[in-house]
Amino acid sequence: MQNKLNRLPKELNLVKNLKKVLKRHHPRTVVPLGDDAFVFKSFSEKTVVAQDLLIEDVHFKRSYSNSADLGHKSLAVNLSDFAAMGAKPHFVHVSLALPNDISEDWLLSYYSGMTSLADSYQVEVVGGDLSLSPGPIMIDVNVIGEVAHPITRHGAQDGDWLAVTGSLGTSHAGMLALQKELYIYAEATQKHLRPNPRLDVAAILNKHNLNTETVHAMMDCSDGLVNDLFHLTREFELGVELTEAEIPISSDARHLAASLKQSPIDWALWGGEDYELLLAIPPNKKDELKYIFENANLDLLFIGKFNTTGSLALQKIDGSLESIKEFQGWSHFRE
Amino acid sequence: MQNKLNRLPKELNLVKNLKKVLKRHHPRTVVPLGDDAFVFKSFSEKTVVAQDLLIEDVHFKRSYSNSADLGHKSLAVNLSDFAAMGAKPHFVHVSLALPNDISEDWLLSYYSGMTSLADSYQVEVVGGDLSLSPGPIMIDVNVIGEVAHPITRHGAQDGDWLAVTGSLGTSHAGMLALQKELYIYAEATQKHLRPNPRLDVAAILNKHNLNTETVHAMMDCSDGLVNDLFHLTREFELGVELTEAEIPISSDARHLAASLKQSPIDWALWGGEDYELLLAIPPNKKDELKYIFENANLDLLFIGKFNTTGSLALQKIDGSLESIKEFQGWSHFRE
Repeated sequence: MQNKLNRLPKELNLVKNLKKVLKRHHPRTVVPLGDDAFVFKSFSEKTVVAQDLLIEDVHFKRSYSNSADLGHKSLAVNLSDFAAMGAKPHFVHVSLALPNDISEDWLLSYYSGMTSLADSYQVEVVGGDLSLSPGPIMIDVNVIGEVAHPITRHGAQDGDWLAVTGSLGTSHAGMLALQKELYIYAEATQKHLRPNPRLDVAAILNKHNLNTETVHAMMDCSDGLVNDLFHLTREFELGVELTEAEIPISSDARHLAASLKQSPIDWALWGGEDYELLLAIPPNKKDELKYIFENANLDLLFIGKFNTTGSLALQKIDGSLESIKEFQGWSHFRE
Repeated sequence: MQNKLNRLPKELNLVKNLKKVLKRHHPRTVVPLGDDAFVFKSFSEKTVVAQDLLIEDVHFKRSYSNSADLGHKSLAVNLSDFAAMGAKPHFVHVSLALPNDISEDWLLSYYSGMTSLADSYQVEVVGGDLSLSPGPIMIDVNVIGEVAHPITRHGAQDGDWLAVTGSLGTSHAGMLALQKELYIYAEATQKHLRPNPRLDVAAILNKHNLNTETVHAMMDCSDGLVNDLFHLTREFELGVELTEAEIPISSDARHLAASLKQSPIDWALWGGEDYELLLAIPPNKKDELKYIFENANLDLLFIGKFNTTGSLALQKIDGSLESIKEFQGWSHFRE
């Protein structure tokens, strides 16, 4: 957008309206939107970059995601990556390829949805690109920010607790509810359409100067618990024993699963898109973390322990131990 | 890619092969490809960001652009934005949405085309995303780098010379030649498929510590000369008188235009995608710049002068002055 929005003189009104929606003033900006590139005063801390695609009919359907939802979600999934590093986001680039039936109102509403999330974190949309798409809506968002002490996915150790910051499977329940037009499941549909990036958790970790001594590893839970544990275990160099009774399931997921005769635990294991954070916490830091999260009014649920088995197991509510052997839900190039 | 390539355990071979193609070691890298986000040691100079889309059947056709060409071009158009700011690129994020008929070989060849350009400037591919596309190929590339003294589009003044670093209309000639399968126009087709970002010009400006006192404004010529002058004149706050005799036309463009009974000057004015640089140079710096460029074996052609008319005119070879009134070649959302 830094250059391309300005390349459409027949669309000057659109450009002017968009600039009105996007206009902010970040103190680090040197060359703003409207030039060949965006320039800002470099951070004193390390620089962080995340970039994520949302493709129509792969990641969302226009039938149940409106443009403001998409503006929110396409930024939120990147902010979630920032939360997972303990990082602070600043600048957003948005590339949109849009079919020619998309209206100017759609576009303005997309940016409104995005800026209303961005403004809550003093994040600014500063550039990107805009093109016709001869096919689906394609959205690619890049976020740049800073971090003092990045927490990676790779530091979990044998004996660490596995903790999660909120319910799992809720977004999957929300997606099913949307597809079935069951709008009473409002918490779940909201979590699917407008996920909440856990920057509040990152902020608490930073406030208490918690680094990789206290949190060995962290990542956001976007592909379902099992798929994400593939990374936290370093491709099964470690294993994890999950405790079914401790896995947080929302009431929406519980009720919808009951009515569909499905298992809400399966949704938690395989569903994805909850954008909660997964943390690997050494045993001697568990109480400190619990105390800090409780005082900040944030959830932290201890749902399993890392071990050296190189595999995943689920301790069922009846006490039996079930092996989780097979990956499910992946397909070629599917996010 | 930092996270998504790793989310495809059934595609582990693909991921491993891609990592082989991409593997580099940038001295600033703190958290490499393979985590929630990419982290690097911040630059001491200002940070620069550019992001550009390439969409199949809007910006290119698969019938004449192979995947290595696309890897090159999708990076080159962003590096051209860096050249236009006088900036140095470092890190690349690539998002690809690909139809399911795209093979692993296509993808590896795409990244090979990109890295062979990236390596010539010590630029490294460090992240991005990968998704299925239910429609066309969509490519979105983000480049991050640094600049000491950014040169913007906005500093041209009345009386400045307008200069360009190479021939105009050649890429348009190349596109027509490709569409007509006239492969003898190899220079033009190459310029269209594998444009050369003018980072050599940016490097010379930096080597001589030339800032906005010597180059009032700069931008890359990507949408055709007239469309780009819309920006260099600050939306016609200024005007420009072009001299037809001075506009550099390549022999390929001249010959193809003659055989098609079209005007190569029209291609230069409206064609786009040449990715040469346009510079606004104060009269008292013209000789210094000429001398510097000649010594570096770089072209710098003085094709017009800025004035206060608020419009564009072309001094024809016969001496007459023709007004350039109407914008051409734009359509809704077209790049």
